[in-house]
Amino acid sequence: MPKTYYIGTFIHSLTLTTLEIVEHGTICVSNGIIQSIHRMGEDYSELDSTLPPSALLQKLGHDNNAPQLTIRVIPKSHFLFPGLIDTHIHASQYPNLGIFGKTTLLEWLNKYTFPLEASLTDPVKAKRVYTQCVQRSLRNGTTTAAYYATQSARSTNILTDVVVSLGQRGFVGRCAMDSDLQPKWYRDESAEAAADDTSACVEYCKEADGSGRVRGIITPRFAPSCSRDTLSRLGRLLAEGEPEGLLCQTHISENSSEVELVKQLFPECSSYAQVYDAHKLLTPRTVLAHAIHLTEEEIALVRSRGSGVSHCPTSNMALGSGSLWVRRLLDEGIKVGLGTDISGGYDVNVLEAARMACLVSRGVAEGGKGDESKISVEEALWLATRGGAEVLGLGGKVGGLEEGMVWDVILVGADEVPADQDGEDAEKMLNGVHHEGEQTKIGGKVDFFGWESWEEKVAKWLFSGDDRNIRAVWVGGELVCRK
Amino acid sequence: MPKTYYIGTFIHSLTLTTLEIVEHGTICVSNGIIQSIHRMGEDYSELDSTLPPSALLQKLGHDNNAPQLTIRVIPKSHFLFPGLIDTHIHASQYPNLGIFGKTTLLEWLNKYTFPLEASLTDPVKAKRVYTQCVQRSLRNGTTTAAYYATQSARSTNILTDVVVSLGQRGFVGRCAMDSDLQPKWYRDESAEAAADDTSACVEYCKEADGSGRVRGIITPRFAPSCSRDTLSRLGRLLAEGEPEGLLCQTHISENSSEVELVKQLFPECSSYAQVYDAHKLLTPRTVLAHAIHLTEEEIALVRSRGSGVSHCPTSNMALGSGSLWVRRLLDEGIKVGLGTDISGGYDVNVLEAARMACLVSRGVAEGGKGDESKISVEEALWLATRGGAEVLGLGGKVGGLEEGMVWDVILVGADEVPADQDGEDAEKMLNGVHHEGEQTKIGGKVDFFGWESWEEKVAKWLFSGDDRNIRAVWVGGELVCRK
Repeated sequence: MPKTYYIGTFIHSLTLTTLEIVEHGTICVSNGIIQSIHRMGEDYSELDSTLPPSALLQKLGHDNNAPQLTIRVIPKSHFLFPGLIDTHIHASQYPNLGIFGKTTLLEWLNKYTFPLEASLTDPVKAKRVYTQCVQRSLRNGTTTAAYYATQSARSTNILTDVVVSLGQRGFVGRCAMDSDLQPKWYRDESAEAAADDTSACVEYCKEADGSGRVRGIITPRFAPSCSRDTLSRLGRLLAEGEPEGLLCQTHISENSSEVELVKQLFPECSSYAQVYDAHKLLTPRTVLAHAIHLTEEEIALVRSRGSGVSHCPTSNMALGSGSLWVRRLLDEGIKVGLGTDISGGYDVNVLEAARMACLVSRGVAEGGKGDESKISVEEALWLATRGGAEVLGLGGKVGGLEEGMVWDVILVGADEVPADQDGEDAEKMLNGVHHEGEQTKIGGKVDFFGWESWEEKVAKWLFSGDDRNIRAVWVGGELVCRK
Repeated sequence: MPKTYYIGTFIHSLTLTTLEIVEHGTICVSNGIIQSIHRMGEDYSELDSTLPPSALLQKLGHDNNAPQLTIRVIPKSHFLFPGLIDTHIHASQYPNLGIFGKTTLLEWLNKYTFPLEASLTDPVKAKRVYTQCVQRSLRNGTTTAAYYATQSARSTNILTDVVVSLGQRGFVGRCAMDSDLQPKWYRDESAEAAADDTSACVEYCKEADGSGRVRGIITPRFAPSCSRDTLSRLGRLLAEGEPEGLLCQTHISENSSEVELVKQLFPECSSYAQVYDAHKLLTPRTVLAHAIHLTEEEIALVRSRGSGVSHCPTSNMALGSGSLWVRRLLDEGIKVGLGTDISGGYDVNVLEAARMACLVSRGVAEGGKGDESKISVEEALWLATRGGAEVLGLGGKVGGLEEGMVWDVILVGADEVPADQDGEDAEKMLNGVHHEGEQTKIGGKVDFFGWESWEEKVAKWLFSGDDRNIRAVWVGGELVCRK
């Protein structure tokens, strides 16, 4: 079996509050799985990290002359990091990035969102939109994404094709939405049709990708979009899909008016969360986007059911939905990941969601919930990787760098500001383009000056990094994006 | 006198709430000043905008064979826009972008900020840091910036040299800071030294740039940093500089603890604003950064003195300082511009400050101040241009596209997503690099699909644009940055 050794710096979350930074390490990958990890820090002083890579491998006991052995040395000021995980993204809304005006959720849906989504019944348009979205997502370092497509099964299957062909790990959901509140020109014809089309899309994923890298996901758009009958049918589908680990995604308590609406629509339920629970949709395999305005009782219910929350801070700010008190959920032991929520959010970059999670938490603290509400750099990166993995039922498989985990990894790079500011190097770097021989490297926004600690470099990357800093992306050991 | 005609789309703010979008226009620039503007829209139907540029000029009555006439045709999906104005940026803190942890203002100053600033007494380091900061600022489309340097006059003068040599319009201020609260290793020796060094730096600007494009600015760091004697001396310097339009910049009411501190330090003053007023520092030529926690009385005082406010929303969120109620100030008729506040803020891009101004205002609305608190796309762009110009005493000179105004302009471009997503074009675009003959164009984050209105294109640019979309930057008619 071919093996690849990566030699250089790697960084990942050990716990919610702890990043492990291994400046000199080797990671052996085979068949897309991490086989072994060696750390050459102070505890490994017997190993000389300045040795040539092949000699280093020999010292570690590896036969570096074995056939099918590849050694990749990570450049200085670059590091390997687990791929980012986007737990909530509407690929169909991608063209509307930044277009939301002063609307809030319910008006925004009718004014901007439904017309665009409905137009993606045009397969040419759908392919163009989805391809751009998924490529941008991958290039920003997202190795796993939980997508919403549209109400149309055909359009949804096009998204599945695109995700499969571009090699991202993901979930693709057709929006089930049959309620009278939906516009007539954009809704399921009946509860039966809603359930059947959902099943068909889940099946389509299995055919399109036998490996299970891309999977269907039960997606009741949100309670106000669905009849009781549809919710019940989807709940049964979810239960039937249990042995295969079928997931469910939906929205909850994003906006105060929406919460009011759900109260009116479902008077028999004691809360928004209880609507989903009554229809067997609140499970350990359920992803709840937003969850801003949950009551104490709802938090207890979500916790008892083991459902996860997708925190979408950029979207929440853009649509004026409110600020999620993330610490409260984490303290309860509820799984939390991050979502870009395109196009409620306006950036396909999970790092933007991570930095906004930090910022929103400072507002929550300042608003009276106390300093302990603040999310640190380490915590934001945990949410963007391990947290997302847990929410999507992939904990222990992706989101970290451990033996046995899948090689869903990004190579992050930043350039050092030239010492000679007048020189050609400076001009090249500021142009964002380096030509070195035949290789073209894309510079980024992050400027390292050389005196930063690794902790500081990571903070700078989190707050000022963009797609240009993502130099390579692997999913399941396969290089799916290289710049 | 040589003339340049720009032919294509231009966009700028007419009023706080109105953008003028001229899809087919010509602007004639001579000696760095806009000489004439022609709009060829529905009202100009006698002109055929599809004519070749030279024929177009002839129809407009211009002698297009005149010597020293240059015609620049703006590519489709590009537009000219007034240069962005950053009313508050600490160039000396640039290397600390993203490094702030969970601190708030007063802890942040001592832990991260003062040590870095103090280290810039090393002239080599100072030049490296300032050059990177000012170049990045220019490349993000900032044509005018109000800079804070450090306490050191020598270091401040290096920033002046850098701004002059790179061709940006700007103000460079030495931080006056002599109070006992400052660390001993980073403060002015006396009030006399504080005033003398301030004068010397203002004079240095005059020598370094005879054109007045780069000017010194009186900069008491903030009230807690200064003795009463220093504040008084700076107030006198400001009054003496009046005929030349000398400005003053400082901080006010950024953080609740800071407001408390000022109360304790200046018990003789009825408010924070009154501290500055008592020392003749609250004038129509004063720029007040933050101004989040002003009382009604202070707002009335600021308005009566005609001082302007630099709104720094990114910084305010990052340091958990609070949310400025911008609408309140605008309704009072107080001048408001935007500041990146590097490195309280983590992005040198004024567009980021503009989009955060929109987002923060939605939080303010949601927090109970009402929907009318929301800042629109148009208003955010007004703040980033006209508003900033007014705050810096440059209203009517920069910030808009009008006859008689200075050619401080950016060329904004975004690429259209290829119709054929599988083609080479798509790959090139996503790589962010186009090679066309010998010309290299840098792509950006903004994806136009071709069906957007110009209003939607502008919104997409505001929310997802970055430095890659800024294709050229002119200051005073001079091309200072081209990609």
